Amino acid sequence: MSDAPEKTSFVEDLTDQSDDFSRWYNEVIRKAQLADNSPVKGCMVIRPYGYGIWENIQRLLDKRIKATGHQNAYFPLLIPESLLQLEADHVEGFAPECAWVTQGGKEPLEERYAIRPTSEAIIGHMYSKWIESYRDLPLLLNQWANVMRWEKRTRPFLRTSEFLWQEGHTAHASEQECREEVMRMLEVYREFVETELAIPVHAGKKSDAERFAGAEDTFTIEALMRDGKALQAGTSHHLGQHFAKVFDITYQDETGKRQHVWQTSWGVSTRLIGALVMTHGDDAGLRLPPNVAPIQAVIVPIYRKPEDKAAVLGFLEQIKAALGEKVRFHIDDRDQYSPGWKYNEYEMRGVPVRLEVGPKDVANSAVMSVRRDTRAKESIPLAQLPERLPALLAEIQKALFDQASAFRDEKTVMVQDLAGVLAHFEGGGSGFVAVPWDGSVAFEAEVKAKAGATLRCMPLDTSRFASLEKPGHRVALFARSY
Amino acid sequence: MSDAPEKTSFVEDLTDQSDDFSRWYNEVIRKAQLADNSPVKGCMVIRPYGYGIWENIQRLLDKRIKATGHQNAYFPLLIPESLLQLEADHVEGFAPECAWVTQGGKEPLEERYAIRPTSEAIIGHMYSKWIESYRDLPLLLNQWANVMRWEKRTRPFLRTSEFLWQEGHTAHASEQECREEVMRMLEVYREFVETELAIPVHAGKKSDAERFAGAEDTFTIEALMRDGKALQAGTSHHLGQHFAKVFDITYQDETGKRQHVWQTSWGVSTRLIGALVMTHGDDAGLRLPPNVAPIQAVIVPIYRKPEDKAAVLGFLEQIKAALGEKVRFHIDDRDQYSPGWKYNEYEMRGVPVRLEVGPKDVANSAVMSVRRDTRAKESIPLAQLPERLPALLAEIQKALFDQASAFRDEKTVMVQDLAGVLAHFEGGGSGFVAVPWDGSVAFEAEVKAKAGATLRCMPLDTSRFASLEKPGHRVALFARSY
Repeated sequence: MSDAPEKTSFVEDLTDQSDDFSRWYNEVIRKAQLADNSPVKGCMVIRPYGYGIWENIQRLLDKRIKATGHQNAYFPLLIPESLLQLEADHVEGFAPECAWVTQGGKEPLEERYAIRPTSEAIIGHMYSKWIESYRDLPLLLNQWANVMRWEKRTRPFLRTSEFLWQEGHTAHASEQECREEVMRMLEVYREFVETELAIPVHAGKKSDAERFAGAEDTFTIEALMRDGKALQAGTSHHLGQHFAKVFDITYQDETGKRQHVWQTSWGVSTRLIGALVMTHGDDAGLRLPPNVAPIQAVIVPIYRKPEDKAAVLGFLEQIKAALGEKVRFHIDDRDQYSPGWKYNEYEMRGVPVRLEVGPKDVANSAVMSVRRDTRAKESIPLAQLPERLPALLAEIQKALFDQASAFRDEKTVMVQDLAGVLAHFEGGGSGFVAVPWDGSVAFEAEVKAKAGATLRCMPLDTSRFASLEKPGHRVALFARSY
Repeated sequence: MSDAPEKTSFVEDLTDQSDDFSRWYNEVIRKAQLADNSPVKGCMVIRPYGYGIWENIQRLLDKRIKATGHQNAYFPLLIPESLLQLEADHVEGFAPECAWVTQGGKEPLEERYAIRPTSEAIIGHMYSKWIESYRDLPLLLNQWANVMRWEKRTRPFLRTSEFLWQEGHTAHASEQECREEVMRMLEVYREFVETELAIPVHAGKKSDAERFAGAEDTFTIEALMRDGKALQAGTSHHLGQHFAKVFDITYQDETGKRQHVWQTSWGVSTRLIGALVMTHGDDAGLRLPPNVAPIQAVIVPIYRKPEDKAAVLGFLEQIKAALGEKVRFHIDDRDQYSPGWKYNEYEMRGVPVRLEVGPKDVANSAVMSVRRDTRAKESIPLAQLPERLPALLAEIQKALFDQASAFRDEKTVMVQDLAGVLAHFEGGGSGFVAVPWDGSVAFEAEVKAKAGATLRCMPLDTSRFASLEKPGHRVALFARSY
């Protein structure tokens, strides 16, 4: 906690979510010290507390990426314009939002370089060098990197010109294997986001209008924020042979014949931190799921008299020894802030559990725990703390997921047709609207034009939408979104 | 090991170090699949095997950076030209090698942005916003990031336009605390590089001519490569109040007075991978220290008859179960390559231990281990493998360090004066030359002009150079360098 504390009392000033959700969001990001504005247009600084969340996300997701057979690598930040232009849809989608490097040292460059908005082009070029035989397949790589998309309107974590992400890029011998990989990584994302971030999602397929520039199919996980807007939390793309054909990525199959590979790409980004804030936060600030919270429990000593101070601080040493590395805890023994001030600060920062330790607790050889999510109190004897605290954290993790799921389900309504979709949004409705959809582009366009909502996905699991099943139609979820 | 294997037999073709060290280096990088060239001028692709080394470096160093009280954060990639220009020495040192972004999306930018060559300027700007009181100090941040310096002549890992690194940036209330931090991080680097990379270094101070652009003092760790050239492996800078004054980073002290902070910065980069290659490699390829080797032991099954195959593969399952997660091992059961081919491949890739498992080994319930560094063989009973293999790896780690230390010491000579330095290099000598130095700039310039060698550092530990102690002089180490 060497990061500088906020300079003045601040909790009272937090805007209520119901008054102005967008303002609430910006204030929480700043007051909880997740991020700050920078002098670079559209780019933020991720402060240690926000970056601590990202480190936990990286650690927990990287484990899953490796467990499914992928390895990490690192490709150049810059992409020659000529490479970016090879795939027509890709360049059309990304070139308009690229930052361009035109000068290297003192000399103007012969060819412009784009700062990578995504790395299909540079990786496609390398894959064409590396892949020769069916024995070289599948090639399963991932990279953790910064990318840049020059955005006009930005918001911390949700849409910034530069952001951090991971991008997986794989090449396969057959379309079937390729499609299996697309679904495997979509499922990795769904399970990761639901388990570790406690964010329930709909996993599904994008419509043609919404898919990735250069992909054949895009699959997505879609979450619902507290203001009723959807947020795309991760995508997995079936690239078909689009890049293989323009980058000439071929292999010799077992019969000696040259074939183009089939490719996927998939990614999640620091946007997930914005999703965490808007899924779990409340009017007192953040509520972080324990699995990714940089601090899972904050310990606040309480004393007035000098002899109490010695006893309390002595007891803290016992707590430290008892907890060891079982939880990520932080002891806040700063003298210049009152316990009450600290309570507010750690509520703002969303620390899942607060442990209060005063003279009475020392006398009882116990600590008073306070849950951030429900504010429920519970005295925990020191002897039980090493077992009870991890269990309590697991309960909070589950409670946050259950609460977000209930909210998401309540905000998912079913209608039978276009008129129903429009009526929902015109009547002030938000959330997801499920509707049978015949694939009509006009339907999508009308919802977008009249309600400002887009087709978020066609969910893979339609069991909850059984009443909407109609021949020649697929269930589609519409929502306004980030 | 999903990364594509090299396409043809290749070990026989490796250039000997003594024939052409530079060529040997480039071949090993490529054949061991550490990195590959990219279509971006001066930028490489770090392949999974090379990136796996970097991940181990990150993990082991990050632990030390956090244990000394630092937190990670992330600052923007781009730096507005006006910010970079505030510190005069800094801009003079770095502006000529910046890559410049001049266009964002479809519009030319009003102000150019440099892709960060290092982040003092952007971080200084943020620190001036965050630091207000002595209570906000020390501020101890680090970032893992990519940086870019537009280099004319590049070599994989050693000097590339883009590279990966960590950069620590700290602010302190007093010069003394600041100087303590500079030395603390220099010592973290020394201990890390010697312990984990098995590379012995001289830790010392740079001369004025060699210090970081914008620093008051630069400290360095200097390693010696197999060809007798020195390599700067990490630096720790005392920035004084240079940046604090131009970025107006001030705090109110305990008496209510405004004071400028004192700052440090320190970094190591993917260059360390180049140092590993050139410190430990031999004519058969890489030799990786076990602590950072992506694969610590490769297991190669050997069989001809089908019934042997079943027995050997069955035995491998027992080995897997016995080893668990005690070591990072890889089983290479590819059928298309012979055991002999695999031996060569893993020698090239520097895997510290090879475990051969054939029918005889199965019959004895043992494996035959072969050390990469000495090629010493040892039959290890399965029952002892979980204890013996980690111990063997520790022996190899130590042996590599001892061997490199002996080489470094043998290649460090002592002379009494400038004439001695020049005579050493003119006589075909390489390595470090230790000499008493009176601080004369002309001395340094003459060595550089006549011998192409620079003052690498004034070592902090001069115990081995006691015979060179002279009043008004400091011991200085000269060497040709990367």
